[in-house]
Amino acid sequence: MLPGVGVFGTGEIANVLVPLLREKGFEVKAIWGRTLREAKETANAQNVTFYTNVIDEVLLRKDVDLVFIVCQPFLHAEISVKALGIGKHVVCDKPAGLHQTDSMKMVRAAQYYPTLISLVNHPLRFLPAFTQMRRCLQDGLIGSLGEVVLMDVRVQMGTLFPEKYNWMCDAQMGGGALNLVGSVVDLVHFLLQQQAIRVHGVLRAYTKTTPSINGIRQITAPDFCNFQMELSSGTLVTVALHSHTVPTKSFSQEVLVYGSKGHLVVRGGDLFILKESQQKEEAVYVDVQDLHVSTNNSLLPRPYIKGLCKMVGALKEAFNSKESSWIKAPVSTAATFEDGLYVQAVVEAIRKSNETRQWQRVQLTTDVPLNHDQIIRYGYARMSTM
Amino acid sequence: MLPGVGVFGTGEIANVLVPLLREKGFEVKAIWGRTLREAKETANAQNVTFYTNVIDEVLLRKDVDLVFIVCQPFLHAEISVKALGIGKHVVCDKPAGLHQTDSMKMVRAAQYYPTLISLVNHPLRFLPAFTQMRRCLQDGLIGSLGEVVLMDVRVQMGTLFPEKYNWMCDAQMGGGALNLVGSVVDLVHFLLQQQAIRVHGVLRAYTKTTPSINGIRQITAPDFCNFQMELSSGTLVTVALHSHTVPTKSFSQEVLVYGSKGHLVVRGGDLFILKESQQKEEAVYVDVQDLHVSTNNSLLPRPYIKGLCKMVGALKEAFNSKESSWIKAPVSTAATFEDGLYVQAVVEAIRKSNETRQWQRVQLTTDVPLNHDQIIRYGYARMSTM
Repeated sequence: MLPGVGVFGTGEIANVLVPLLREKGFEVKAIWGRTLREAKETANAQNVTFYTNVIDEVLLRKDVDLVFIVCQPFLHAEISVKALGIGKHVVCDKPAGLHQTDSMKMVRAAQYYPTLISLVNHPLRFLPAFTQMRRCLQDGLIGSLGEVVLMDVRVQMGTLFPEKYNWMCDAQMGGGALNLVGSVVDLVHFLLQQQAIRVHGVLRAYTKTTPSINGIRQITAPDFCNFQMELSSGTLVTVALHSHTVPTKSFSQEVLVYGSKGHLVVRGGDLFILKESQQKEEAVYVDVQDLHVSTNNSLLPRPYIKGLCKMVGALKEAFNSKESSWIKAPVSTAATFEDGLYVQAVVEAIRKSNETRQWQRVQLTTDVPLNHDQIIRYGYARMSTM
Repeated sequence: MLPGVGVFGTGEIANVLVPLLREKGFEVKAIWGRTLREAKETANAQNVTFYTNVIDEVLLRKDVDLVFIVCQPFLHAEISVKALGIGKHVVCDKPAGLHQTDSMKMVRAAQYYPTLISLVNHPLRFLPAFTQMRRCLQDGLIGSLGEVVLMDVRVQMGTLFPEKYNWMCDAQMGGGALNLVGSVVDLVHFLLQQQAIRVHGVLRAYTKTTPSINGIRQITAPDFCNFQMELSSGTLVTVALHSHTVPTKSFSQEVLVYGSKGHLVVRGGDLFILKESQQKEEAVYVDVQDLHVSTNNSLLPRPYIKGLCKMVGALKEAFNSKESSWIKAPVSTAATFEDGLYVQAVVEAIRKSNETRQWQRVQLTTDVPLNHDQIIRYGYARMSTM
């Protein structure tokens, strides 16, 4: 039987997520919002009976066994750690907290409860073009994975900023292009199975206001990023993210991987290959599936929604599997909290490089956060609900 | 009457240039080659009666008044300075010598003989899409020129390396992608009329051998470059040059300029505009002209050949103008030796950035080379030929 779901958040993603969850057979039992008014609004719009602005009121519900955390990043670590402590499965949206200390708290909580699902929502991992690309790379179709020489990513999207001012407009919160950078960093890691050693990046905040955001609070988050990564094997990754000048709601992505014996390229949702002996690219996967859920009004690019839809499907499969030890297999594609920590470290290094005008080593924090008590404390609450 | 032409060089460009010159009405009087055999081969192929491997034998010819220097870069400064001293007009291929000292010698010689034409061959300046783009920028069609926020250049081309090993394979000679970098640096300068203050770049030499170059001498020149420039007004320029994995003989270029009120973009040879109120790009210039000269076997990308063709046309116009004081007007679009010096300084800073992993200030040399004697000495030779 599928677990009941509690959703933390009332923004764009919450409104896309609830219908997707229902389509796959999950019941959404509760909505949490920062204010009661926001919670009520989303609960009414999505036809969910229970809403609250108190975190524990969702976590302590016996009919909620899986939580989706899609609210402001500064709450991601707190809610994730509490939820795991209390025995709930967790899917947390990117970024995994505000900084590496946050991510580390999440990692420790996940390690403490290894039987619970704890994932970061990086939906591109579930997009068929990318899962197929990963398989082609593993199968050595363009040469050995360790010999990939270059990866080039180019994303152009309409505005990154929502109608109303929220954390996505705020540089300190990791909003704007920084969030997109995180998605790309995770995708590179997923595809090439290698981490970055050094990075260099240029960030720019060209958009200060929009027709709807033009009051006292201005946009501080960057809307442009150009960065380079050097991976452990020496592979170079070059990335260009543009958003400030692209017509609203447009989205294009091109991900090229050059191997020793050819290249693979994802354009939009399609995958192509060029082997060294060939003169023309050949289609490996053409995206024909369409979404059942209407997403016309969403700011989220379609590949992200499609990926999210696939991830929810994988979660369903995971919970339907009989063998509890195998529960995580269908979601083994997904990003773990450790992956979230790595992404955080790379994004921090890119920000630092932008300030220092130098390449920066990617440094994973070794600070062990003192959240052991917090993990355990909620363990008691958990027992009391059982 | 058009001046007779002497061509220094026997490679790709020489073989494209001679037919272009003839088409515009110039007579090619002499070919110089590094060896007599090479000179003879090209002279025979192009049906030129006089050939030699002695530089002065071309320069001292009375029927040669314009020289095209398209040989190895280490000879560019020497031949340019001699030719100007002896009273000949000079068009020198990029790069303007091997290093800034070379370029500076050329600049000083050009300053000493201001009535003689002294140009660096940067043919993209003459490509209609770019001359139109420059006009649109000057006319403020996407906002004021000082408010351009971002320029993004992407060039993908088939192999940079010729059939036989030559300077284009050699990093020290400024071959491979470094030469392409120079073209882009000049184009940015031409379009935005601003110079770079700081640069950052990553260079890679992926191709070591080709089916025809696989002996003792391997390719050392880079075939990949990703670089960023910060211009005097703060405008950021991002550039990606790929060649190692693109099928041979293919060429694509995209040059985007984002202003405060829209963007302009050249794709291939066509120019488009998107103004801020519009939803779709509009064609400003569509390239329909075709070349009369067959270039099927040339390694040179078509836009470069088209630009070269236009430049030769502008030279014809210059020499046909009655007023000698106006002789340079039709070629005012072209790159001067000063422009060549600037490009050299930027390319040097990019190479240094690649080594140091830091942004580098662009530093124009202030060393004054001691070539005054050389400039004057050939002045005597000049008088003796008159």
